Amino acid sequence: MSKKIIIGMFGFGVVGQGLYDIIKTKKLNLEIKRFVIKNADKKRSLPAELFTTEADVILNDPEINTVVELIDDAEAAFEITKRALSSGKNVVSANKKMIACHLEELAAIQQEHGTSLLYEGAVCGSIPIIRNLEEYYDNELLHSVSGIFNGSSNYILSKIFNENQSYEGALKKAQELGFAETDPILDVGGYDPKYKLAIVASHAYGIYVDPEKILNLGIDKLGTQDIRFAKEKNFKIKLIPLAKEIDNNRVVLYVLPKFISADNLLYNVENENNGVVVKAAFADEQFFFGKGAGGHPTGSAVLSDITALRYGYRYEYKKHLDATQIQYSTDYVLRVYLRYTDEATLENIKFNNISERYYSEDFKYVIGEINLQEIIEKRDLINQPGNFIAELV
Amino acid sequence: MSKKIIIGMFGFGVVGQGLYDIIKTKKLNLEIKRFVIKNADKKRSLPAELFTTEADVILNDPEINTVVELIDDAEAAFEITKRALSSGKNVVSANKKMIACHLEELAAIQQEHGTSLLYEGAVCGSIPIIRNLEEYYDNELLHSVSGIFNGSSNYILSKIFNENQSYEGALKKAQELGFAETDPILDVGGYDPKYKLAIVASHAYGIYVDPEKILNLGIDKLGTQDIRFAKEKNFKIKLIPLAKEIDNNRVVLYVLPKFISADNLLYNVENENNGVVVKAAFADEQFFFGKGAGGHPTGSAVLSDITALRYGYRYEYKKHLDATQIQYSTDYVLRVYLRYTDEATLENIKFNNISERYYSEDFKYVIGEINLQEIIEKRDLINQPGNFIAELV
Repeated sequence: MSKKIIIGMFGFGVVGQGLYDIIKTKKLNLEIKRFVIKNADKKRSLPAELFTTEADVILNDPEINTVVELIDDAEAAFEITKRALSSGKNVVSANKKMIACHLEELAAIQQEHGTSLLYEGAVCGSIPIIRNLEEYYDNELLHSVSGIFNGSSNYILSKIFNENQSYEGALKKAQELGFAETDPILDVGGYDPKYKLAIVASHAYGIYVDPEKILNLGIDKLGTQDIRFAKEKNFKIKLIPLAKEIDNNRVVLYVLPKFISADNLLYNVENENNGVVVKAAFADEQFFFGKGAGGHPTGSAVLSDITALRYGYRYEYKKHLDATQIQYSTDYVLRVYLRYTDEATLENIKFNNISERYYSEDFKYVIGEINLQEIIEKRDLINQPGNFIAELV
Repeated sequence: MSKKIIIGMFGFGVVGQGLYDIIKTKKLNLEIKRFVIKNADKKRSLPAELFTTEADVILNDPEINTVVELIDDAEAAFEITKRALSSGKNVVSANKKMIACHLEELAAIQQEHGTSLLYEGAVCGSIPIIRNLEEYYDNELLHSVSGIFNGSSNYILSKIFNENQSYEGALKKAQELGFAETDPILDVGGYDPKYKLAIVASHAYGIYVDPEKILNLGIDKLGTQDIRFAKEKNFKIKLIPLAKEIDNNRVVLYVLPKFISADNLLYNVENENNGVVVKAAFADEQFFFGKGAGGHPTGSAVLSDITALRYGYRYEYKKHLDATQIQYSTDYVLRVYLRYTDEATLENIKFNNISERYYSEDFKYVIGEINLQEIIEKRDLINQPGNFIAELV
């Protein structure tokens, strides 16, 4: 029933090392035969003969039945994953961008070749959200899935709201700790949580949506006035990806900063932690919390996928097969707060209605209802320095 | 790949009705062919020909491939489950007492007959903890699993700590709302969470422990002084079942009231909600939150099990097969608060040490370290009216 897993691993960074740490503490019927790395000269903690720079050493080795793909480059990862799945090897990946951008094609390839591609580690690190959406909520009417999917931006927001730090100070601290990249826009601009959202949407609703078509605005324009506004009203601001069924046939997806109050399950998700809220017709509100990143938590999710392969596990994408009538929509009205600098900005953005308006010398905002489609169309205008948008319930 | 599920259901109470509600809203390849109920005269919301009082009508029907067992009587449920599994039918049950008291035998019967017994609904209603322990954390070093597994007692504690109600007033209110039975001892005495803990322990650590051997003390002796003591120190009291690995080979299990502070993930689990905290070496701290009981949440868990049967899912009890060296232990030192009335009580209980002692005319307590084995041996003495014990970290 259980076959021996012989692994070829691409990448030996923090997750690869974390996974290796975990595996060596356990008596598992698995072996890491070879690592493909980019830089042959870098000093490694393991014997040199385990490493190669040639992808073919793994991809052409018939003994290797499982490829673990942990590299940063999404397009290189896609080529590796395609070749591996097509040649009868199963693949475990934690590359959210690669999965999100090529999910439909990858699902088809694994289907065609009878192989399995698993990627629990790509979404919210240690939290088993993909497996649960795929298996446990497979017949539930899911009203929505949302959460905190990005630890770096959440760390920054925690420092701002709990320790009165500025956005710039908190970002610098996150970079020093290695939670944020030198160019942090993938995190603070909401791209990373958008890739994860696209993956979540496929397992929650059976839809494959090109991430390019999903709105993401981040916290990179967050200013002291927005922070003061939130604190005065006992809100925190969190960066929230949302997948929501708006009627029987349509689902909206977007990533926006959001003002949330203490009764929200995500209110106490702090620092680099992640949280996922699943709202379902019958199970009601469910919440998952855990470490969203890091070598060991993500390594643990990757290992869970590897061992699931021993029992022949694969995502069946049942909801996609069952529910082809569900469509991705951008026609949805949100209530937002928009801080702006230039009156011309406001004149160029069509609100359905404006319910509050504030004006002072150095701080102007409106609160009102706006269609998601309008935000998408005016994205560049809204995202200019001096402006900040956040959802408000 | 997916076979048609034809169900015979035992019981048509709140969970059975909830499940029926869910099923009728979905296009699933399944049918409930017959209900076995106890009282033939009771008015039902469905056609009379669907109901029978004869168990054999289901158990001898070769077309019925799945038995859903939702009756209260644990021993009757056990007989039904045994017969069904032995005659080639799969069984889904939400009967925690039946599962906890007979788990080893039931696991052996399903193994022998190649059938499957699933029971996600038996533990924490809608929260998919069994499936995750069995599948997702199958290779993790689990330090502990704990939580709030009983909605009735948690509802009472929430009323006491958030609305300043007395224990008696809160219990009465819970009974009026149907959250607590007329004889509430199963809930407030910690028996119900103990059954769930025994089930959790088998999927977390691979050990089968007779619930009779597990300590449970509840909140039924909670008094105004204990509540005041907790509030003065910004604690809440929660009723917490705990499964904890104390070294590589030994696991302790017990259910005790516990003082917890605001940094505990269970602190904000209020009312009839449940929460589970899994501490693991690599995934770190994970938290699951959701509705712990009720027709729809539990019905949703039962449905998830039913549809998993379409894909041949069964619990493999891998950890039991792998880890037979893990032993249940009661040799573990806890720090506790003990309110007592009679000095003789204290003289008869052996503490390893006492670090605090308080004495006034109407309120006496000690805080100290005590071995779990000693609490088990002196359980009846500790549990006398006038005394109250709770764990303190």
